[in-house]
Amino acid sequence: MHGSVDVPTALAIGIDVGGTKMAAGLVDADGQILHRLRAPTPARDPEQIVRVTAGIVETLRRHAPASVVGVGLAVPGQYDRHDGVFVRIANLALRGFPFRERLTDAIDLPIEIENDTNAAAYGEWSGGSGRGCQDFAFVAIGTGIGAGIVLDGHLLRGAHGSAGEIGHTVVEKDGPRCRCGNRGCLELFASGGALAARAADAASQHPSSMLAAWKREGRALNAGDLFAASAHGDDVSQSIVRDAVHYLAVGLNNLIELFDPERLAVGGGLSQIGDSLFDRLRQAVRDQRPGSPDVSPRIVPATLGEDAGIIGAAAAARRAS
Amino acid sequence: MHGSVDVPTALAIGIDVGGTKMAAGLVDADGQILHRLRAPTPARDPEQIVRVTAGIVETLRRHAPASVVGVGLAVPGQYDRHDGVFVRIANLALRGFPFRERLTDAIDLPIEIENDTNAAAYGEWSGGSGRGCQDFAFVAIGTGIGAGIVLDGHLLRGAHGSAGEIGHTVVEKDGPRCRCGNRGCLELFASGGALAARAADAASQHPSSMLAAWKREGRALNAGDLFAASAHGDDVSQSIVRDAVHYLAVGLNNLIELFDPERLAVGGGLSQIGDSLFDRLRQAVRDQRPGSPDVSPRIVPATLGEDAGIIGAAAAARRAS
Repeated sequence: MHGSVDVPTALAIGIDVGGTKMAAGLVDADGQILHRLRAPTPARDPEQIVRVTAGIVETLRRHAPASVVGVGLAVPGQYDRHDGVFVRIANLALRGFPFRERLTDAIDLPIEIENDTNAAAYGEWSGGSGRGCQDFAFVAIGTGIGAGIVLDGHLLRGAHGSAGEIGHTVVEKDGPRCRCGNRGCLELFASGGALAARAADAASQHPSSMLAAWKREGRALNAGDLFAASAHGDDVSQSIVRDAVHYLAVGLNNLIELFDPERLAVGGGLSQIGDSLFDRLRQAVRDQRPGSPDVSPRIVPATLGEDAGIIGAAAAARRAS
Repeated sequence: MHGSVDVPTALAIGIDVGGTKMAAGLVDADGQILHRLRAPTPARDPEQIVRVTAGIVETLRRHAPASVVGVGLAVPGQYDRHDGVFVRIANLALRGFPFRERLTDAIDLPIEIENDTNAAAYGEWSGGSGRGCQDFAFVAIGTGIGAGIVLDGHLLRGAHGSAGEIGHTVVEKDGPRCRCGNRGCLELFASGGALAARAADAASQHPSSMLAAWKREGRALNAGDLFAASAHGDDVSQSIVRDAVHYLAVGLNNLIELFDPERLAVGGGLSQIGDSLFDRLRQAVRDQRPGSPDVSPRIVPATLGEDAGIIGAAAAARRAS
């Protein structure tokens, strides 16, 4: 089937290692996923994670119409590149485990490991919403909030592998305590998790609200419901949405003041809300920067969705090769 | 006098173009200033700025024991490298003027132009407090507050030449209006200018305070006086200093969360206060980051003082050559 014409070269494998599932792809130089694979993550057993990863690589290599130059992994944790070890990681038992060394033993290809948000940012930069950008910022708003920054084609990782932690920048001085120990972090006000909690509270406190009606129908309220109810004129939801967008704009403005990106893409679960989020967010960021319209980035939706980690991890592996 | 032994090579000229004076130096590859020159800045006449710059270069070249590879200028404005033009600049009539082109016509050496805070950051990185750092942040607290970031040896300039504007990150959501148009910017609470104003206010409102006594002696109160009075137990000053340091720590924490620098140097007029500033600032930043002591940068005083711009501009010119 695959003759000598149009065979893609420089294939790489990207694996997005989540807390429950591993999503992998064989990715060509244009960022196209030629073949996909999924497996449950053996989150509690690091050696088993290595074995499943090696198995995924073996299977994908069998589907490869050309040679594979490397394997990239996108992992939700703070990774010490120097030692090849995760120093902080929430949902996988990889902390302190010699992950890079064990993967290198088990897999006969160069291995690149990246933080998942950084990998997604690199994916969006190399083949999505950030294509062609010199200075690109990607902000993922999901359960938490994180950012990945690509400057001049290079991922900004930071001295301890923890650059881009916009979710823990302070947007409310002396605000409520965050799980990180600090007070008033952005994540407390505008993450998908925070908004779901706020929606549930509002439904309890305002029984005549649209949210309360939806909750009675058995709906698990999320951030999208808040935006939907807000668009339908629900007062309580409008006020929650207004606050959240205002906090987000403060956080994004602070990132913009420090990085001055050309383009800023927003991804993660919250970005699925679409125009009703982006229209408000753009306006709120403009309101933060009345004197700086000419030095403000375009704010755009991320385009790769859940594939960003796979594509970015593969691109990082290809670049390192 | 200058024989063939120990003659420094790769000399460069650095010129710090301030609103009132131009401070220039002939700088060797180790960042040592071999010869200095000063001149008043003809701030209102861009052609005259070019002529004075050319004259400075000519004079310094005559003192050069080896060939000069380039000229770097540190200028307090937002510079568009693409067009070679300042798009925003406060105290010099250079806005929209074809500065790089005119300098290139007038001077027979390669020209590099940098924002002054960026040049100072690059100077501190190349030969001062940031030496040997992979990820380095420099924060200058003077009349205003600005930052310069050096990542992997490269200055972060941003897509519009305005990266590092920590003075206009928001530390008090919905706070007082800033001259930039936004509300609650760091500069309003912790710059030398803001603190001098706060000291004067306090002296008026609290006639029995130490500040009021000093004001009656004819002293022009500044931030240093606030720290001095605070150290002597003056209640009013202690409260102002505590607030300012808290705001600074919020701003620095936000920068740290986003960049994760290895080292963070503080320079500018306020840094002259010395240990009583740095001890408080380090503690306040630790208080902001109770869960992240291991991913926090060392906070150190900048070491080059007013020479940072000269040395950094020269280093930038040398690097570009």
